[in-house]
Amino acid sequence: MKHRIMSRSVGALVAGALAWAIAQPAAAADAPAVSYPKGYRHWTHVKSMVIQPGHGLYEAFGGIHHLYANAGALRGYQRGRFPDGAVIVFDLLEAKSADNTIQEGARKVLGVMVKDTRRYAATGGWGYEGFKGDSQTERAVGKNAASACFGCHDGQKAQDYVFSKMR
Amino acid sequence: MKHRIMSRSVGALVAGALAWAIAQPAAAADAPAVSYPKGYRHWTHVKSMVIQPGHGLYEAFGGIHHLYANAGALRGYQRGRFPDGAVIVFDLLEAKSADNTIQEGARKVLGVMVKDTRRYAATGGWGYEGFKGDSQTERAVGKNAASACFGCHDGQKAQDYVFSKMR
Repeated sequence: MKHRIMSRSVGALVAGALAWAIAQPAAAADAPAVSYPKGYRHWTHVKSMVIQPGHGLYEAFGGIHHLYANAGALRGYQRGRFPDGAVIVFDLLEAKSADNTIQEGARKVLGVMVKDTRRYAATGGWGYEGFKGDSQTERAVGKNAASACFGCHDGQKAQDYVFSKMR
Repeated sequence: MKHRIMSRSVGALVAGALAWAIAQPAAAADAPAVSYPKGYRHWTHVKSMVIQPGHGLYEAFGGIHHLYANAGALRGYQRGRFPDGAVIVFDLLEAKSADNTIQEGARKVLGVMVKDTRRYAATGGWGYEGFKGDSQTERAVGKNAASACFGCHDGQKAQDYVFSKMR
């Protein structure tokens, strides 16, 4: 919110903040930070995909990505509803094309979805974060989950806000 | 051996069999079949790669492949020597290109390497098999591991005959 706040007049700020607070579920403003998913490299590999130049999501998600599920998320993929504690990781790496192969390069971002119905009520019961590159602390989403993540995931409500399916 | 034996005279057969028996480690002739790696989809995902048309290995390995390691193989990747019981799976799927993406298609073959120093002494201590498509019984390698697999893996002796490295 910081940059938006600083560019507005105080009157507009107060009015805007009030309208926003009324419109949002109580948990939205102070949704706790999503933790780095330690150990995810040993979770179950759900599926993979390459997004190439020319794709509408290339700027955000271009490269090769792998999805990983913890035990709770595995149950969610099977049942269609994810229990609290489910964690899905979106591991996005550069896709390096050479000699008629595509190979994995450096990590671009590690996306994380954590199910907690109460804490993340404002965004479908899921908390969202992205960790930049190989960092476990540099956050790409922060307080912007509603616009940066849920804006798209909201369309997947019938699948409990999850795009991927277990291969 | 059956087909080779039937095409030879008895004398040539005996001489050939003796020479062969002397030249090979004891376990080679009756190397036990490699089992289907049940549960491998929940093992650790090692790395992935896409092999495209024009690549020298396209006919055999074209598509997107994922490597998976059981607990023993994980220790092997870390230490450079794989303990008996290590299993590595090479999961080869069709790579479907569309709309600036590459997505996973049907399974082409499930390759398996099993470390057993004694049983598979003739092929570097590794047993090899390929299971066709989604079958757990249709075998693509059978008795041909020496030529179909070890011919290439032999060149990786310094890495205990394994091409992949843990990403």
